[in-house]
Amino acid sequence: MSNTVLEKAAVLFAERGFAGTSLRDIAEAMGMTRPALYYYFNSKEALLQELVRGVTGSGSQELRRLRERTDIGAAEKLRVVVSTTVARIAESPLRFRLLERNEAELPAEILQEHHTSKGRILDELTKIIADGVRSGEFRPVDERIAAFSVIGMINWIAWWYKPDGPSTPEEIAREMYEMASRGLVRGADRMPASGVEGAVALLREDLTHLERLVSAGGSAS
Amino acid sequence: MSNTVLEKAAVLFAERGFAGTSLRDIAEAMGMTRPALYYYFNSKEALLQELVRGVTGSGSQELRRLRERTDIGAAEKLRVVVSTTVARIAESPLRFRLLERNEAELPAEILQEHHTSKGRILDELTKIIADGVRSGEFRPVDERIAAFSVIGMINWIAWWYKPDGPSTPEEIAREMYEMASRGLVRGADRMPASGVEGAVALLREDLTHLERLVSAGGSAS
Repeated sequence: MSNTVLEKAAVLFAERGFAGTSLRDIAEAMGMTRPALYYYFNSKEALLQELVRGVTGSGSQELRRLRERTDIGAAEKLRVVVSTTVARIAESPLRFRLLERNEAELPAEILQEHHTSKGRILDELTKIIADGVRSGEFRPVDERIAAFSVIGMINWIAWWYKPDGPSTPEEIAREMYEMASRGLVRGADRMPASGVEGAVALLREDLTHLERLVSAGGSAS
Repeated sequence: MSNTVLEKAAVLFAERGFAGTSLRDIAEAMGMTRPALYYYFNSKEALLQELVRGVTGSGSQELRRLRERTDIGAAEKLRVVVSTTVARIAESPLRFRLLERNEAELPAEILQEHHTSKGRILDELTKIIADGVRSGEFRPVDERIAAFSVIGMINWIAWWYKPDGPSTPEEIAREMYEMASRGLVRGADRMPASGVEGAVALLREDLTHLERLVSAGGSAS
């Protein structure tokens, strides 16, 4: 029930803005009395806070536990991040867009909580990617840009996904994970032996390759 | 000058919303008289329309010409799309977010134009990817999800890019193109450009890797 209230509130907020929607409007739209609505949410702010938490809320803690796991590699962690985040956004794209659209109207405290959660999620994903680069599983990408790229690709779902569209959230998650992981993982032939020695061995290999190209006429294609 | 007016208007719209900002507010913020502002824009709607066109405007026509080229492959077309779109969004992230945030307040006609432009851009990118799949240059991806993924990764820049941040638009475009093209191109073991340039690119990648290992303590083995 409290979830139905949240969905209905999200629709009203989308139509009228946060400032332009009262608890009374929400109660009316639900066909409830105001006291009945108060049973679930005793203020518009409480309702807002719940909407915000639904979007980013527990995400950062889950992500941290995921990052700290030592039994799986960075690519597998990426797979979990992509599939859980796609599922969460596809479940309520409207809520997600609402927060992005109405940030200016959010009470300072709630906005702060939202920003902090978003920052933590970015931070955890950045660290997962950096760990992958360090272990040689990923290419030496700029981990910050890479994290924003993965987050952006997923967040944008809120602007285009429709439950009655041609793709299920599972299909979207699978395609996005394939794109992101192929974009990050080192080619199979480029997997270095781990550590400094492995990196130096790769360099030597590439130098030999370059040397041959240059002595063969340097046909810089 | 008209571009300065647009930037200033974008800032005011961001602070007060479209509905809450008058031409007079904009003139005042510019230190201009209203008649002087009228010389550039004779209504708030004209100003809005120009802002909308700046964000998506000529993009779809350029994209169509790009798609129809037969002298370059799909990956190269993707490179052009990524670099031009990243540059456009990084140039005015505020304008871009404004349109997304204030869609509900936009006059119907302008909103329609905005949606049509966005739809065309998606359409052209989807076709470029589909062409690449057909020619065997790209993996057999779902071209619609792939196009949304690339667009999302780029559009999200509007939410995080800062001109004084650590990465230039060129660096962001390069990283995003690498991710997107590796995500799409057939063969997980894709080599970068062939020839001396390719060999040098490989070397640079490995040097970066070694550098990070060493600076991380070199004990990663």
